[in-house]
Amino acid sequence: MNLKYDPNGLVTAVVQDVNTHQVLMVAWMNAEAVRLTQQTGEAHFWSRSRQAMWRKGETSGNVLRVTELRVDCDADTLLVLAQPAGPACHTGETSCFYRVLE
Amino acid sequence: MNLKYDPNGLVTAVVQDVNTHQVLMVAWMNAEAVRLTQQTGEAHFWSRSRQAMWRKGETSGNVLRVTELRVDCDADTLLVLAQPAGPACHTGETSCFYRVLE
Repeated sequence: MNLKYDPNGLVTAVVQDVNTHQVLMVAWMNAEAVRLTQQTGEAHFWSRSRQAMWRKGETSGNVLRVTELRVDCDADTLLVLAQPAGPACHTGETSCFYRVLE
Repeated sequence: MNLKYDPNGLVTAVVQDVNTHQVLMVAWMNAEAVRLTQQTGEAHFWSRSRQAMWRKGETSGNVLRVTELRVDCDADTLLVLAQPAGPACHTGETSCFYRVLE
């Protein structure tokens, strides 16, 4: 199946813990990040702010071991099922969604 | 807390079933969609393709009753915890992520 990349060559990637089912983070992948994720089994993303490839956990050690990539009906969003080696959020929280919107 | 809308005035919204924890769909919200969602308790989105406000289920009846809105560390993505009245996907599948990416 062909993914539908946006004009910037990206798809949205939602990461969910395959065991706890907690939604951990949302990031972006280009075709190369998808390829590297599939090839290595570790989640890779494209950083829009740094305009650079990014292997999640490359500095923190908190890699995401990917067990499955799922694609939505529009083929423009991925659901990344993964086993996290540690907190997914750079703040140290398990999930980036640690705050309730009041 | 102030959300950080992108240049198009949108934030990404990930919808998760509050009971089954299944990730159901990903869509977009502008400030008005966030406001309507909070005010009515039913998920509203901004359709980028139709450039129009969209109350999920307005034609299908498969509304999303929102129990909580969570925000990520960057404040540019929402996690919408909801009770779906029926299949979230327009294909009739429970979740839009019904396919594995090979």
